[in-house]
Amino acid sequence: MTARIVDVETIDVRFPTSRALDGSDAMNEAPDYSAAYVVLHVGDDGRGERGGDEGGKGDANGGAGDDGSEVTEGHGFTFTIGRGTDLAVGAARAIGERAIGMSVDEITGDLGAFSRHLLGDSQLRWLGPDKGAIHLGAAAVVNAAWDLAAKRAGKPVWKLLADFTPQQIVDLVDWRYLKDALTPEAALELLRSQVPGRAQREAYVREHGYPAYTTSAGWLGYDDEKLARLCREAVEQGWDSVKLKVGADLADDVRRCRIAREIIGPDRRLMIDANQTLGVDEAIEWADALREFGIWWFEEPTSPDDVLGHAAIQRRIAPTHVATGEHAHNAVMFKQFLQAEAIGICQIDACRLGGVNEAVAALLLAAAHDVPVCPHAGGVGLCELVQHLSVFDYVAVSGSMENRVVEYVDHLHEHFHDPVRVEGSRYCVPEAPGYSAQIRRETLEAHRFPEGAVWSGAAGPVAS
Amino acid sequence: MTARIVDVETIDVRFPTSRALDGSDAMNEAPDYSAAYVVLHVGDDGRGERGGDEGGKGDANGGAGDDGSEVTEGHGFTFTIGRGTDLAVGAARAIGERAIGMSVDEITGDLGAFSRHLLGDSQLRWLGPDKGAIHLGAAAVVNAAWDLAAKRAGKPVWKLLADFTPQQIVDLVDWRYLKDALTPEAALELLRSQVPGRAQREAYVREHGYPAYTTSAGWLGYDDEKLARLCREAVEQGWDSVKLKVGADLADDVRRCRIAREIIGPDRRLMIDANQTLGVDEAIEWADALREFGIWWFEEPTSPDDVLGHAAIQRRIAPTHVATGEHAHNAVMFKQFLQAEAIGICQIDACRLGGVNEAVAALLLAAAHDVPVCPHAGGVGLCELVQHLSVFDYVAVSGSMENRVVEYVDHLHEHFHDPVRVEGSRYCVPEAPGYSAQIRRETLEAHRFPEGAVWSGAAGPVAS
Repeated sequence: MTARIVDVETIDVRFPTSRALDGSDAMNEAPDYSAAYVVLHVGDDGRGERGGDEGGKGDANGGAGDDGSEVTEGHGFTFTIGRGTDLAVGAARAIGERAIGMSVDEITGDLGAFSRHLLGDSQLRWLGPDKGAIHLGAAAVVNAAWDLAAKRAGKPVWKLLADFTPQQIVDLVDWRYLKDALTPEAALELLRSQVPGRAQREAYVREHGYPAYTTSAGWLGYDDEKLARLCREAVEQGWDSVKLKVGADLADDVRRCRIAREIIGPDRRLMIDANQTLGVDEAIEWADALREFGIWWFEEPTSPDDVLGHAAIQRRIAPTHVATGEHAHNAVMFKQFLQAEAIGICQIDACRLGGVNEAVAALLLAAAHDVPVCPHAGGVGLCELVQHLSVFDYVAVSGSMENRVVEYVDHLHEHFHDPVRVEGSRYCVPEAPGYSAQIRRETLEAHRFPEGAVWSGAAGPVAS
Repeated sequence: MTARIVDVETIDVRFPTSRALDGSDAMNEAPDYSAAYVVLHVGDDGRGERGGDEGGKGDANGGAGDDGSEVTEGHGFTFTIGRGTDLAVGAARAIGERAIGMSVDEITGDLGAFSRHLLGDSQLRWLGPDKGAIHLGAAAVVNAAWDLAAKRAGKPVWKLLADFTPQQIVDLVDWRYLKDALTPEAALELLRSQVPGRAQREAYVREHGYPAYTTSAGWLGYDDEKLARLCREAVEQGWDSVKLKVGADLADDVRRCRIAREIIGPDRRLMIDANQTLGVDEAIEWADALREFGIWWFEEPTSPDDVLGHAAIQRRIAPTHVATGEHAHNAVMFKQFLQAEAIGICQIDACRLGGVNEAVAALLLAAAHDVPVCPHAGGVGLCELVQHLSVFDYVAVSGSMENRVVEYVDHLHEHFHDPVRVEGSRYCVPEAPGYSAQIRRETLEAHRFPEGAVWSGAAGPVAS
């Protein structure tokens, strides 16, 4: 009997975060953190498709058994912020159907081919290509396949990746549009050069963890008093870096940066994030006005599509680094940001890119251009995912933690089976098999939109 | 009583074009030309929403009455190629809901503000921004609003635009991310310089039409014999330019270009289109191998996101022009292609961009950079739309037809109320009020997916 994908379950999961202005910034004034959630269900030949949506989906079902073949679920998602999650769910369903009937060994044995197969529907491709709802949907399915592969291997995703040979890692990537910036041969050489140090770095990161920074202090919807209190708490909790949202009003931002810098002192790092609200010349004006506060990086100053604009800004605001990537939709965009020397910090997103495979492409491109990767996180579940990517980057790709931090926001982790653990401003290395992507079944049911109790009113009033 | 938008009707319309390999190319091997179709329904205050999907939607309902206030429907769409059309329809519905309840005068009186309002939902924006399914959906709604505005004004869209003052045209555009390449003030100056010649150019284009070229000869799925026959027919029909699809196999493409060039002779223009299949270095290899055939433009050589890649190709293959744009998802992309001197031909798409407003932005950017706009068309209904944009460009923006041609493919025009008319390789100027966007009601019903007769089997067997 051959284990095959027999069903792709998709769930529209939303959290009513807009009630408290958690996550508010100059562009996203009231997000409801959400996920287009995917479960790949495994069955044996002849078992056919699952009977329906009821029953047989207890939490234990998706965990790793002692033997990997006991694992019958792979969980993945893409992150969204409310309305439109249904479109990402629809995309994940359309793309996920391409996996139904495939053998699990075929998928996990060549995750590069599987990813290319999912993205290769020529009709769906018209909606992108490699961007927007279909790419978000593809990410959810690809991520679920990695969760499945890692659980069956009995390893966390970072370790599954870090145990791959350089050639296996190179084969994960679709090189079609990347070779003018990095050839597969050059990537192989880069990866091989890191093989001798892998074991030592793995031991180090297991013992010391991976550096984090916090955005929790600086949401735009918070008043000065709350900002000051949260900055003080960040310092007391041992954070080395604090990031503020900016971009709505320059005078406000000068005042808020002054408050933050006074509280965190001269030695901790201060970053700002305009969430795409500014034009190129305005971004330069902002950076000039905030220069006195010693900004480490200026994140998303303008349109995420504007490679040349970011390059123009970067040339003007050094030594402050331009940082972007959470809305950079594919590896071709990262290729250009790096070729144009438009960014000093590369912020990959585990769901905006087409899942683990394209994230690996971005890690290789960044390492080849000697630009640190500091993943975008927060939202719901992004911290859980990107920790795997950064630990893998450290062990097997860049080999460095220098100037590298993973974003951390202390929201919604309680809904996950294997939540991140952060101690003393560092992520602890995840050890459970899988991609840490699995949301608790009771959360999925309660937050299912629109029929879950949180939204239907059964759990009390909810602001839209 | 105030006329308001009382309903946004959305329809998933698909044509089974994959049966005949019409529209086949190296990337899109079997498209089913489709549309995410939108009808904005107008009613009076107090009338409330339409009762449902049945009744009251006869064809006459959407035509222009003698008095514009009689017009109660605006029709628009975005073009897709089969699977995934439902996602564009879902996006159009979500975005269209933002129009419900708005007064028609408010919408048609400031179409710039209306477009920005539609695109401004911060939660939906996360799925893009300004790209993918949500942007396609937005285009359908924006285009429907222009159809409504033009019908109520009793003018075709090109004439509605060409009668606007320079300031009114500038106000259509969202300048947030464009000002580093073109300021509103510079755009105003450009438009003002064309005002004195508007009347003369309008008379000229009404009399002589606008130049077209044909892609019908060169689809990749056609064999050499059919290619030769169609090239001969194109010459006999008076076409000055022929375009071939390339990119699957270089030896095949050399042979096919030789056939085409021999038949069309040395003086007609030959263009090639790789539909994004090549890497940057491969595209240069292709252009070198085909150089002997005197290629006017090389269309979509590589990833549509790769501004720097296109620039590298353009530097190497001159005097052949790089042409791209049918997958350039927003004005920020066109801004960069122009800034980087990456394209010699600017191929806007009436639906990939967020409708008329963003197309106007692209026209202004191209004119400011002195790059000819040759719109992408074909598919279903794209010819009907882009003729308006090019005629407007000639009358009021670039003021020139030099090196400018609009794509023409002779497919599916019979389904439209106001189909394009092409005579002697030139588009005749559309004269009926509206955006020529309205598909016949019987076509909408028969091709509605999946329940229409064409798809449900009631109209005979259909290949998937």
